[in-house]
Amino acid sequence: MSIEVVTLDAEPAFAFGGRPPALTVEPGTVVELFTEDCFGGAVRTVDDLPSEVCEFPYLNPVTGPIAVAGAEPGDTVAVHFVDIRPARSWAVSSTFPHFGALTTTHTTAMLHPALEERVWLYDVDAARGICRFRARSAELEVELPLDPMHGTVGVAPAAGEVIMSITPGAHGGNMDTPELRAGTTAYFGVNVPGGLISIGDGHCRQGEGEVCGTAVETAMNTVVVVDLIKGGAPAWPRLESDGHVMSIGSARPLEDAFRISQHDLVGWTADLLGLDLLDAYQLVSQAGLAPAGNVVDTNYTMLAKLPKSVLTGASVYDGTHARLRAVAAEYLGRR
Amino acid sequence: MSIEVVTLDAEPAFAFGGRPPALTVEPGTVVELFTEDCFGGAVRTVDDLPSEVCEFPYLNPVTGPIAVAGAEPGDTVAVHFVDIRPARSWAVSSTFPHFGALTTTHTTAMLHPALEERVWLYDVDAARGICRFRARSAELEVELPLDPMHGTVGVAPAAGEVIMSITPGAHGGNMDTPELRAGTTAYFGVNVPGGLISIGDGHCRQGEGEVCGTAVETAMNTVVVVDLIKGGAPAWPRLESDGHVMSIGSARPLEDAFRISQHDLVGWTADLLGLDLLDAYQLVSQAGLAPAGNVVDTNYTMLAKLPKSVLTGASVYDGTHARLRAVAAEYLGRR
Amino acid sequence: MSIEVVTLDAEPAFAFGGRPPALTVEPGTVVELFTEDCFGGAVRTVDDLPSEVCEFPYLNPVTGPIAVAGAEPGDTVAVHFVDIRPARSWAVSSTFPHFGALTTTHTTAMLHPALEERVWLYDVDAARGICRFRARSAELEVELPLDPMHGTVGVAPAAGEVIMSITPGAHGGNMDTPELRAGTTAYFGVNVPGGLISIGDGHCRQGEGEVCGTAVETAMNTVVVVDLIKGGAPAWPRLESDGHVMSIGSARPLEDAFRISQHDLVGWTADLLGLDLLDAYQLVSQAGLAPAGNVVDTNYTMLAKLPKSVLTGASVYDGTHARLRAVAAEYLGRR
Amino acid sequence: MSIEVVTLDAEPAFAFGGRPPALTVEPGTVVELFTEDCFGGAVRTVDDLPSEVCEFPYLNPVTGPIAVAGAEPGDTVAVHFVDIRPARSWAVSSTFPHFGALTTTHTTAMLHPALEERVWLYDVDAARGICRFRARSAELEVELPLDPMHGTVGVAPAAGEVIMSITPGAHGGNMDTPELRAGTTAYFGVNVPGGLISIGDGHCRQGEGEVCGTAVETAMNTVVVVDLIKGGAPAWPRLESDGHVMSIGSARPLEDAFRISQHDLVGWTADLLGLDLLDAYQLVSQAGLAPAGNVVDTNYTMLAKLPKSVLTGASVYDGTHARLRAVAAEYLGRR
Repeated sequence: MSIEVVTLDAEPAFAFGGRPPALTVEPGTVVELFTEDCFGGAVRTVDDLPSEVCEFPYLNPVTGPIAVAGAEPGDTVAVHFVDIRPARSWAVSSTFPHFGALTTTHTTAMLHPALEERVWLYDVDAARGICRFRARSAELEVELPLDPMHGTVGVAPAAGEVIMSITPGAHGGNMDTPELRAGTTAYFGVNVPGGLISIGDGHCRQGEGEVCGTAVETAMNTVVVVDLIKGGAPAWPRLESDGHVMSIGSARPLEDAFRISQHDLVGWTADLLGLDLLDAYQLVSQAGLAPAGNVVDTNYTMLAKLPKSVLTGASVYDGTHARLRAVAAEYLGRR
Repeated sequence: MSIEVVTLDAEPAFAFGGRPPALTVEPGTVVELFTEDCFGGAVRTVDDLPSEVCEFPYLNPVTGPIAVAGAEPGDTVAVHFVDIRPARSWAVSSTFPHFGALTTTHTTAMLHPALEERVWLYDVDAARGICRFRARSAELEVELPLDPMHGTVGVAPAAGEVIMSITPGAHGGNMDTPELRAGTTAYFGVNVPGGLISIGDGHCRQGEGEVCGTAVETAMNTVVVVDLIKGGAPAWPRLESDGHVMSIGSARPLEDAFRISQHDLVGWTADLLGLDLLDAYQLVSQAGLAPAGNVVDTNYTMLAKLPKSVLTGASVYDGTHARLRAVAAEYLGRR
Repeated sequence: MSIEVVTLDAEPAFAFGGRPPALTVEPGTVVELFTEDCFGGAVRTVDDLPSEVCEFPYLNPVTGPIAVAGAEPGDTVAVHFVDIRPARSWAVSSTFPHFGALTTTHTTAMLHPALEERVWLYDVDAARGICRFRARSAELEVELPLDPMHGTVGVAPAAGEVIMSITPGAHGGNMDTPELRAGTTAYFGVNVPGGLISIGDGHCRQGEGEVCGTAVETAMNTVVVVDLIKGGAPAWPRLESDGHVMSIGSARPLEDAFRISQHDLVGWTADLLGLDLLDAYQLVSQAGLAPAGNVVDTNYTMLAKLPKSVLTGASVYDGTHARLRAVAAEYLGRR
Repeated sequence: MSIEVVTLDAEPAFAFGGRPPALTVEPGTVVELFTEDCFGGAVRTVDDLPSEVCEFPYLNPVTGPIAVAGAEPGDTVAVHFVDIRPARSWAVSSTFPHFGALTTTHTTAMLHPALEERVWLYDVDAARGICRFRARSAELEVELPLDPMHGTVGVAPAAGEVIMSITPGAHGGNMDTPELRAGTTAYFGVNVPGGLISIGDGHCRQGEGEVCGTAVETAMNTVVVVDLIKGGAPAWPRLESDGHVMSIGSARPLEDAFRISQHDLVGWTADLLGLDLLDAYQLVSQAGLAPAGNVVDTNYTMLAKLPKSVLTGASVYDGTHARLRAVAAEYLGRR
């Protein structure tokens, strides 16, 4: 099997849209890239408060955009995560004033002063597959399994919009779901020629909901395969892993994110199984999962997730995921 | 080990609150009971449309209430699910006019006519551990794993309220989460003497979110152990399984259900590990799960779920779950 | 004109539902009654903190219930406010821990401590038609126009529910809209024989949204005429003043309260003018008003309000409002 | 009094941000401009269905941007509406598939087919001050008062974002409130040099909430005075009329739009009257109004509105509104 491998080297950007491609590749190309953490690498000790060492809007840098040759509006680009590897032996997390699910924010505006801004420094031990939480108010340490992923991946938005990288939406963006780990394929509808894929916000791991507003944030050395499916643009991002298909909705209130994701999954299931919408609605109701992505960003994100065991015989995007899995295996085998 | 076993035989009720106990038991008693399905057993074929064969408000019958001797306001009652066994070889599900997540409802009021009302009949094969979905619009059949659970369990509400059994809230009620399966212990704060536990709405299985509004509904033969913890009443229901502790929030919009559940889990984690709230917030943010319960009932339900591996050394409710697990094992061993 | 006048003398209740009538009257009867303030009269100085001098759930007392002879489920009862007169020369308002729109609450749960609990004492000068705000943090005083109204009015709920008086819903309850002033007729669908009307929570005035959680609260001497319309039960409360018809929705999130109110007003307008729903939707879109009632209670309340000038020739509830206006004029003329 | 008057002639744009100024003026300049209707003038008969004659994203054109010389980030630009005059003797309104408050949309996603798309043609009679609604399903005609206003006005957003003109936010945009009529001054925080003001979406009138999704839409000949206040950038748009000050919040869910607007008004009131936040919270609670702007756009809009009678002695933006009123009077006197 012959695979093309290129390395992307780009200045960090802070938005989806409004930028020319940093790299253009043929469908099927393996791309190696580096992403800085959501603080731009500026938070290195528990005394580096993000609100002091970071400057709005230079937050959540993304690497890209990558154009896929031949991608036109209405097409679908696939981004398969081959490898996501922490680039450092440490990671950070923090509260941030007016950000998070259990605090007054600029939109859920209240008369309370901001919560305390606090930083946590994690050890990252890739060999042992763990990252280590150290409490600040007590002597407690807890080892948590490494589960590296990207909070942010997406394409240039429709209608010429330029959207801050911290916002998730129909174009992807900062969806902050732990499902975006190695082994997963993400599908996005193309809005502009090339699609223009950007990736950022590496997490050593995160809980569902990302309730305090940040995950275990670190720089990543990441490898993806990008691919092109002519036509078939999904209205909202979709994921595929070996075990599940997933639809992603990002909106407020959270029930609308839920509705978007379930609506897309119901329609997708109907297409895949040759059912009408009501039959697919029923099947998803009994077999589906509905984990939160994030409930902190400028839009909230929910996933609708269906085991492939329910989809016997159906061909998802003509076997794209399996094909990209094979490319990934070839790449990893050579390394 | 000596265990007390009693059988509860009660008329169906349709609310939490407003009723005297049907049974009073000592803490630690095993209670065997039967629950009718959410349609009161009236939907038996695909031609039995719920809106025709059921009569509001006689929906979602619950069995109970069970008083726990000695339970006073401010105490905690525990309900451990020992066994949940489908009482029939079939089950039903349906859409219902103006009910469900992807349809106009009486509160998310729109100008559309109601979606088609449709019934699905499932085969239940307990021996093989499956229930069988049969599409109505195509020839498709799909076997889904049996995962029996109760959509509805709770206690009499505070403030003398009488709340329809279809509503989830601080008292429990119709939370509709698949986590309410055998092997799980549910904890409720006591509002009235005896606590007054009722149980209903058996599901052969359900997806997270219960998006169409109903699960794979059937009558159940169910066994629980009820217990009493003096004091410590949680503000919202909590669950404990062998692997996880969980807090449950039920409210609208869905982000408030999320906030309630996460807020409770953060406070609970802080208590269990001796952390301050911000440290617990951080730990839950990285290690927690956040699945939807239902996004269709009169309140929506979210769960905040933490692996016990994170809680090393902490004693949850003084080992109540393990103790009730032992009672359950004793009971099941004798049967 | 012959009018019947009776005085209602009842113990305070704290819920809608679950109580026998305190008084039964014929349709068209004038009822004189007294309502205590939402604190049960316990807050009399700025040092009487509600959380210390009041006891949950003995908050927001209502007077009633009044049964209307002949009212059956499916009918409509009308409550016309003839007179709402502050019973004292002072009134109070306060913040209350975990209550209000700009603070963490039990459902919009956050990690902040509660806002400061503070009481404001208002002078009420009925002769001059003003109440006087006195700042606590500065020397400022502001005279505000008296605009007496009731925050709470409604009937016994459907389905045998007993609902705390602080909750607004389809049965009315604690809607907290300044539109419930003298001269307004409220219409409610009847759920139980007699309808069972209760009234409470007098306000010298309130802003729309009642953002801090309480209005200028005082005891009231109030006069209403109650009436019966056979059939025609509205799904949600409706109001009629000399100038406007109004539909009220109470739900969360706030857009659902908006949807309910607009949906009802669109249907009502279609009925009154002989239009189809889309034409009525269009007319309401251009001519309607949409003020907030409250955005603090356990459900939020929005009003959809249409000038009667748009309804030329239409007869609203067969002229009930004009008829009750005449009864009120007769009553007031005699006094 | 010497006033500067210029005419802006610009190509329509469809976004805020991402464009150089079409005109740069000194503070205090009167600008005459023309705005096309939200359909780009393409809907001219009841048979011109918007989904057929308009092309996404070329909807809701705005005229501008106007740079104010000297405006820097952190400053405040004022836009005083001098005159808003329908440019045609007709106007249109419509439903639009998947848009509106009482229909399934792309975010409140449901399984219903879209509502019927229907167009209404209004006569506009400026001399008599009315526009005439003609029902499509019946013979009814209703005259409604002309109350011309702009749905859309704002500045270039922060963080380099480019935001579709149909979205309201912190930068203003498509707020769709009837308060944006002649005689009102709007204040915006400046994000980029010049501020970059754009205006569009003229309405002959609209109801609060704009429930069907469109108002009585027409092209407008509009005159504004733009002005500059150094510093003092409000976080969200503010309005001032002769009688009221208003804060505007745009977000989802609707209670967050409410919270933003009330939070801003509370802070503003505290500043103006020298109160602490709790005292201002109390005063706004009793004296404020809370009408909906729109509950249909990509963000919803609420207003918090306080009568100036409550603000005795306070100077709002150093008397900017009165000064711009004087410029407007001078301009109108000359015409």
